[in-house]
Amino acid sequence: MAQRSYFDWNATAPLREEARTALHAALALPGNPSSVHAEGRAARRLIEQAREQVAALVGARAGDVVFTSSGTEANMLALTPAIEVSGDRRPRSRLLVSAVEHASVRSGGRFPRDTIEELPVDSAGRLELAALAAAAARWPAALVSLMLANNETGVLQPVGEAAAIVHAAGGLLHVDAVQGAGRVACDIGALGADLLTLSAHKIGGPKGVGALIRSGDHIHLPEPLIRGGGQERGLRAGTENVAGIAAFGAAAAAAQERREAEGQHMLALRHRVEAAIRELSPAAVIFGSEAERLPNTTLFALPGMKAETAVIAFDLEGIAVSSGAACSSGKVQASHVLAAMGVSPALRGAVRVSLGRTTTGEDIERFQNAWRKLAITLSKGQRGIAA
Amino acid sequence: MAQRSYFDWNATAPLREEARTALHAALALPGNPSSVHAEGRAARRLIEQAREQVAALVGARAGDVVFTSSGTEANMLALTPAIEVSGDRRPRSRLLVSAVEHASVRSGGRFPRDTIEELPVDSAGRLELAALAAAAARWPAALVSLMLANNETGVLQPVGEAAAIVHAAGGLLHVDAVQGAGRVACDIGALGADLLTLSAHKIGGPKGVGALIRSGDHIHLPEPLIRGGGQERGLRAGTENVAGIAAFGAAAAAAQERREAEGQHMLALRHRVEAAIRELSPAAVIFGSEAERLPNTTLFALPGMKAETAVIAFDLEGIAVSSGAACSSGKVQASHVLAAMGVSPALRGAVRVSLGRTTTGEDIERFQNAWRKLAITLSKGQRGIAA
Repeated sequence: MAQRSYFDWNATAPLREEARTALHAALALPGNPSSVHAEGRAARRLIEQAREQVAALVGARAGDVVFTSSGTEANMLALTPAIEVSGDRRPRSRLLVSAVEHASVRSGGRFPRDTIEELPVDSAGRLELAALAAAAARWPAALVSLMLANNETGVLQPVGEAAAIVHAAGGLLHVDAVQGAGRVACDIGALGADLLTLSAHKIGGPKGVGALIRSGDHIHLPEPLIRGGGQERGLRAGTENVAGIAAFGAAAAAAQERREAEGQHMLALRHRVEAAIRELSPAAVIFGSEAERLPNTTLFALPGMKAETAVIAFDLEGIAVSSGAACSSGKVQASHVLAAMGVSPALRGAVRVSLGRTTTGEDIERFQNAWRKLAITLSKGQRGIAA
Repeated sequence: MAQRSYFDWNATAPLREEARTALHAALALPGNPSSVHAEGRAARRLIEQAREQVAALVGARAGDVVFTSSGTEANMLALTPAIEVSGDRRPRSRLLVSAVEHASVRSGGRFPRDTIEELPVDSAGRLELAALAAAAARWPAALVSLMLANNETGVLQPVGEAAAIVHAAGGLLHVDAVQGAGRVACDIGALGADLLTLSAHKIGGPKGVGALIRSGDHIHLPEPLIRGGGQERGLRAGTENVAGIAAFGAAAAAAQERREAEGQHMLALRHRVEAAIRELSPAAVIFGSEAERLPNTTLFALPGMKAETAVIAFDLEGIAVSSGAACSSGKVQASHVLAAMGVSPALRGAVRVSLGRTTTGEDIERFQNAWRKLAITLSKGQRGIAA
């Protein structure tokens, strides 16, 4: 795929070189980490080193990291009424989630459907804290799930403020940090999260690995999702994805070390993307631009533009963008995020441009040229991307 | 780890070269298989090719393969009372499992504890078919789970006979083929299995990938274990482990192509292992040797030998063996398999030697030499491995 520009880092980020090296090295070791022989112990060491690295990315203790196969699985593991806190054994009989959460959170994990409540967001997609406070007053022992950054708009949620409200009421806070970690500060203590979800492939690790991280061992998960052997201290059975976990650790270490530099790099390039959109299409709307956002994400729409057609037109120009989330079996669906933000249906056919650490100025120029072509087609009202 | 011999292929098999190549190639592709752009479509193609390859290994249709993160997760997905069959909507209110199943099956998946019944095995560890028939008569719509080959002894189960009994009663059969696939014939139709579990890393693929395979689309799984996005036709949410799945496919194709040759190779070497054990230690017991077994597995014990000490002694001699299953967080526990076979406690400290496609004659000689040393220590009653 020579000459292509990849602008879909929120769907999945290319592998970091450090992660590739760690993965290849781990694949050369034959052992099962549960085996007591030298080969087994060598595999075990890779996992425990990665646990330290992943914990460090979010300011947690290694012992509070549970490796899973994805962010989605970590969310399923976290979202259960069975969560217990030392000294507070009230069942978590309600799950409160923002209306812009990822599908794996909105599906409610292991909470029965009628115990899940969605909380509204403002026009920038930020949780309405007054609504959270009211819900927390009604359901003081609730589990609340709020993402750090939205995958479609990049908008950051008021996690710290939400944590204060939730905890004052006696609730627990789960933070889906899949899109935020490695891009903005993500310290589990500073956020006030009791549980936090990460995904390796969003920070430059491989697909197929995630983690659920507890703020401490006072948080108990008495009902694992996957049971059998005693791996992950009994919290997640099944032979560990050793190479994937080792690569996750290496990616976490690199992401932590370079977060600020990478963030500045992406932000400078995103300014150019957004300038081009605004210059060529004054009627374009960039969603959440009035709020604090991830440095790499732009979600925009133009009246009359259809997302699926635009994505295909960009693809033909050698540019990979998306129409929002990429996790629903390839189908382009109307965005629940934009609907929750009160965006009119005519503007919900939005295109997401998400940048990464290796995005270059040339990539931005290719985007500008492609958008120039598409915007002209659109403004002429021709058959084309608006068809 | 120069000069070491790896005899723990049932815990995990070293990666096949074909799998390594496929994995490396997949890691070079950045796309998310749910994305509609070229990068996404390229990732999607890898998954669908692997689905064909994995299906071919067990004579199934690609559309009936659901990729998971492990054999354990596949077992959790399969073992649920919610399974439905077209034209037969009786709830599967009972789970019947043999007493020698893997921990992930014995834990019962999503069946409530009091609906799980363990069925006895004979002295070779084979399911008692009369007990199955009696249980199936009591619970005609039961889900039955029976492994193809036991991970500790290598003993093959009478799966075809069990399938006939289960189906005559109106039940469903799940076969955990994690240890059998790639080593003995494993055709889902010939076995009579309605559902079948595979694990990539037992056949030379990477750790972190498994599959649940249906005998056809008349088997419905209305309650996925991991929910969220629509991946795997809604049966298993979360971004796919693209590289791991691609490598699983390559390993499945290689395992299918070379099964007979590899099986003969392993069997010839195993005869030498067992001859050495019998020659040096006439009191040794080789479990299940009167039954049909996998070509690569020997589980043996000697009165007075403690498994953990023996495993460490072998390890110091450069030989990786195990004391049975390697999936319980490194703890050496008394074998539930040997207990179910009625083996006296004095003989339950057994050592498992499991071979693979790259095991050599030199490896066997190293084993023979090590066992000579250990057997002498044991027979002298000295402090040592019998301590």
